[in-house]
Amino acid sequence: MRLVIVGGVAAGTKAASRARRVNPEIEITLYQAEPETSISECGLPYLLSGVVNARERLVARTPQKFSESGIEALTSHRVEEIDHQNKKLTVRDLTSGEVFEDSYDRLIITTGARAVLPPIPGAELDGVFKLRFLTDYDDIQRYIDEYSPRTATIIGGGYIGLELAENLCALGMEVSLVEGADRVALAYGLEVSERVEAELGKHGVGVYLGDLVEEFVSDGRVRGVRFGGMELETDLVIVGVGIKPCVDLAERAGVEIGGTGAIRVDRNMKTNLPEVWSAGDCVETVNLVSGEPVWVPLGDTANQMGRVAGTNAATGEDRLEFPGVLGTGIFKVFGLGVAKTGLSEEEAEAAGLKTISADVEVADRAGYYPGVAKVFLKLIADRETGRIVGAESAGQGADKLVDVCATAIWGKLSCLDLVNIDLAYSPPYGPVLSPVIQAATILSGKFERETEGVRVLK
Amino acid sequence: MRLVIVGGVAAGTKAASRARRVNPEIEITLYQAEPETSISECGLPYLLSGVVNARERLVARTPQKFSESGIEALTSHRVEEIDHQNKKLTVRDLTSGEVFEDSYDRLIITTGARAVLPPIPGAELDGVFKLRFLTDYDDIQRYIDEYSPRTATIIGGGYIGLELAENLCALGMEVSLVEGADRVALAYGLEVSERVEAELGKHGVGVYLGDLVEEFVSDGRVRGVRFGGMELETDLVIVGVGIKPCVDLAERAGVEIGGTGAIRVDRNMKTNLPEVWSAGDCVETVNLVSGEPVWVPLGDTANQMGRVAGTNAATGEDRLEFPGVLGTGIFKVFGLGVAKTGLSEEEAEAAGLKTISADVEVADRAGYYPGVAKVFLKLIADRETGRIVGAESAGQGADKLVDVCATAIWGKLSCLDLVNIDLAYSPPYGPVLSPVIQAATILSGKFERETEGVRVLK
Repeated sequence: MRLVIVGGVAAGTKAASRARRVNPEIEITLYQAEPETSISECGLPYLLSGVVNARERLVARTPQKFSESGIEALTSHRVEEIDHQNKKLTVRDLTSGEVFEDSYDRLIITTGARAVLPPIPGAELDGVFKLRFLTDYDDIQRYIDEYSPRTATIIGGGYIGLELAENLCALGMEVSLVEGADRVALAYGLEVSERVEAELGKHGVGVYLGDLVEEFVSDGRVRGVRFGGMELETDLVIVGVGIKPCVDLAERAGVEIGGTGAIRVDRNMKTNLPEVWSAGDCVETVNLVSGEPVWVPLGDTANQMGRVAGTNAATGEDRLEFPGVLGTGIFKVFGLGVAKTGLSEEEAEAAGLKTISADVEVADRAGYYPGVAKVFLKLIADRETGRIVGAESAGQGADKLVDVCATAIWGKLSCLDLVNIDLAYSPPYGPVLSPVIQAATILSGKFERETEGVRVLK
Repeated sequence: MRLVIVGGVAAGTKAASRARRVNPEIEITLYQAEPETSISECGLPYLLSGVVNARERLVARTPQKFSESGIEALTSHRVEEIDHQNKKLTVRDLTSGEVFEDSYDRLIITTGARAVLPPIPGAELDGVFKLRFLTDYDDIQRYIDEYSPRTATIIGGGYIGLELAENLCALGMEVSLVEGADRVALAYGLEVSERVEAELGKHGVGVYLGDLVEEFVSDGRVRGVRFGGMELETDLVIVGVGIKPCVDLAERAGVEIGGTGAIRVDRNMKTNLPEVWSAGDCVETVNLVSGEPVWVPLGDTANQMGRVAGTNAATGEDRLEFPGVLGTGIFKVFGLGVAKTGLSEEEAEAAGLKTISADVEVADRAGYYPGVAKVFLKLIADRETGRIVGAESAGQGADKLVDVCATAIWGKLSCLDLVNIDLAYSPPYGPVLSPVIQAATILSGKFERETEGVRVLK
């Protein structure tokens, strides 16, 4: 039995390893268009700043390592066509240019996602970059080495743009960030956006909101960004306005694409085509809070999905399931951890949910313990049932609080359940009552007033 | 309506504040035998080392502050008798020595717990201390100021002893720790004990296991500790072998004491006596995993219980409930965070549960991100259902992992549920798959082999 995997970053390599483990007998070949496998793409902003001090540290596993586990991993090989009726593939060796045919018994498509460059005049200029692949990093690094840019402009105020702001500042550049919406971090509520903007300001990042970029200005290479009637001089531009799933190959082969634009799979990560699974940044899944299809391309879920796809493909059985996601996410911007799980109030409203919320901004540990800092936490609950449907946090320890809230949503807990939850307290690790408990207590009061139940408090 | 609260540390002060909030009309008096209210006792080891740099930082709220909220808080006042039939109290003003009578309509007993000194010859010597109250700290501090001890011996390898080891070392003392059992941190499994012992050793703490202290040796003040056929010279001893609930007053008044030796209350924090509630370190509760009564005196649960007792006493209704605890706990010993929730394997066995477990020792964040360190996590599940019944962790980020596991137990999740849980991932905050997910994946494999279900993996 021959299993072929198309794409070798997170989902693909996880699927390969998992397939090998559950079935030591099968042949496994993995094709990867990029020159490396197992790239930790989430680490790219930190490689740029030198916080991660060597390029190879972002390559978790080389083809040589795969080979030792009996997995053939072919890099710089792009699968160009899938003929699912005959179970054949057309593959191009990008180094030699040679095109050849391969065949499979079972196939896993893990083609990932790519950064999009918006159709802005000048987007093709030298000095205008995106940062998605390690090769993008190489391009930016070469440009920095050659031109020593003193000013940098980031287009887009989402996760990647905000991480870049910190990491370009670390290189000593004067950094600006341009976001078309009226605030950054749109997946969050206004309170978090304001805190992120304040953190950017505190570190000298110029934040320009509410205007779309009209043009990149050039004198051969990029020299400025034009928006909102002004022109901002800049030596370097990195665009982080979004990514999209790489589904062209799959779509041409007859794989069904969902409403989000990503590949549709069932809970076993099966596509509509027989013997074809898919996983990672190229597939859509379901948000378990809203029940709606979502496309949430993240490294951790890609790994989880890859495990399911690899196991099921290797056994030919519906052995594992991937149930869906909560939309949990996190990023660091300077000293601020920013994280969320579930739905923001805006997202909940869009999903037709009526919500109530409560927020606190409190110490992350005992007030007398060194290093104490404030953390903001908002809890969002279904107004009818009190069930937690979302949480967002910004500040020191946001990662812990949001992981607790994600687990609470996973366990279908209500705000009332969280009031007396037994979390770990000691002065170095938390205030005597966790911010989760503090917020849940306020939210429970609101909920009980709202529902006018027997347990309504004065 | 007059509400009297006996005891003013965590549960008592929380009950008072909460009662005031839900019922602005009632009279509230709080009697506190110690000279201060609202003492953060958990901070005492850190005050001793100077990590907390001022004594008053451990006093969260003064009588003056209570007075501003319309709560009369009388310090150095000990309630000596409760006459529940006539709803009268005998109170001693410890400053003047005067004894007077007071009356109540409703009463909350929050008398807390006190440290026990074992009946070891020499335990009364100058230089042998316990550390429970702020006044104990004052005694130790005076002794240190006077004699500048160069060596210190801690008796007891539980939370307080281990925290003291770190904090006495910070004072430049040569520190030894003597524990009668064959390992420290007995509430944990062997793997955690070993890691704690290694951490103590790494910081130069002499650890003596398996022998009970026979005698404290004196030349006027303490000079040595005799155990296991040897004598260890020492200038200072702090005993941390345990605490017991202060229930004498309640017991004399007819309050029922449970099998753990602490006051028995129902979910509304009511005692067996009419109009008498109790909360905090003097009451027992239920371990929600084992279903058994337990006495787990901790500051966070004391606050949660105090909120329930204060609300119910102020309203005279069964308005809030405290469901019980998981046995979650955490401490810091030098660079090691050590935390648990639910039952250890030993505790589960004692409770008649059959368990399976899996442990990992993995990076706490992306392997390439600065500051990465190892963290150990063990997940323990019910062998029949896969339900998580316990978790313990040691290392960087143990607090987060155990809070996630506590929430999982609170939500009655199984190891299978945790395999695909959507936690927050970004390189500075975690490895791509949380240690919780990594451990749950291994545990789920074991569980499925164990149950030989249809989803059994090879």
